[in-house]
Amino acid sequence: MKKGARTRQQVLETAMELFNQQGYHGTGVNQVLAEASAPRGSLYFHFPGGKQQLAAEAVTASGRQVGELLALLADRVEPREAIAAIVGYFEQALVESDFRRGCPVATVALEASAESPEVRSACGAAYGLWQEQLAEGLRGWGIPAARADELAVVALSLIEGALLLCKVQHDVTPLRTAGGQLTALVEAARTEAS
Amino acid sequence: MKKGARTRQQVLETAMELFNQQGYHGTGVNQVLAEASAPRGSLYFHFPGGKQQLAAEAVTASGRQVGELLALLADRVEPREAIAAIVGYFEQALVESDFRRGCPVATVALEASAESPEVRSACGAAYGLWQEQLAEGLRGWGIPAARADELAVVALSLIEGALLLCKVQHDVTPLRTAGGQLTALVEAARTEAS
Repeated sequence: MKKGARTRQQVLETAMELFNQQGYHGTGVNQVLAEASAPRGSLYFHFPGGKQQLAAEAVTASGRQVGELLALLADRVEPREAIAAIVGYFEQALVESDFRRGCPVATVALEASAESPEVRSACGAAYGLWQEQLAEGLRGWGIPAARADELAVVALSLIEGALLLCKVQHDVTPLRTAGGQLTALVEAARTEAS
Repeated sequence: MKKGARTRQQVLETAMELFNQQGYHGTGVNQVLAEASAPRGSLYFHFPGGKQQLAAEAVTASGRQVGELLALLADRVEPREAIAAIVGYFEQALVESDFRRGCPVATVALEASAESPEVRSACGAAYGLWQEQLAEGLRGWGIPAARADELAVVALSLIEGALLLCKVQHDVTPLRTAGGQLTALVEAARTEAS
């Protein structure tokens, strides 16, 4: 990778981490550049749209990262294992960061949606991607399309809400409870369909 | 109400609205004072702990407001009606504000939890209150305590996650879907217990 591309990538990865932990307004571009060891002038060179573009790209990249996990899981395993893997992924992120990390999109989504159409659109696309992948996984387990679509919204809401509660309570119990309920719902929908 | 108390109340109510819509970092104390028509010096007079105290009190007051709704409902009505009323309450808040308002605690909770123990504690208490009230309501419908506690976490996660999706997608569908699923879960738990 050329030096310029490497700098851009370092800035983007640092931004993903800081926006996840601190949100949009709590993260200054100077902090991102400093932690990425990038020269001050490099922000507008690599991200001409400034902070909004950086946040939109960070959200998009984080969305893709979680999306890869979801795609991998949906293809290969049983619901119980798949949901345990999703819960485990986020549980590790919460615990390793002393509950500073959660959903990499949620904080920015809540803060910046009203003020930046570019950021809102990136957040909406990330959630849309996850929702579609969840629905696809559910259909793959034999759940009819209409119920799969509904259950994908339920799954995403449950996980997002539980991640929020975990972060505030410094406790992974809500995520485990949500995972348990989700497994029961998916297995019931599967039994019903068979 | 004396003038001082009236000013304090106006500042607090304005802060509740602005923290709900814009989050912690997106809301400046000068904006709160200006929109409350309060003199500049009045912040530290009424809230000696500054912005952190103001946010903590705003979250506490918003928590109580939603808590009153939950208490009222749990006492009097059937699950289907109660959940429809909760969904209706938040749906109105979302639509009336062009999706700027959502859960009055969530944005501040995600942003400020890591940096202010005072704000995190207030957010944790608000969620704890709602969770306890939901569990109480569920027990009142004949659901055994252990399942009621679990289902209260599920209900809170579902509603919080759905509110986030509604805000990002500018669409109330996730909240309605979450409400429908929650009604089915509560009715199933009730049938099982009877």
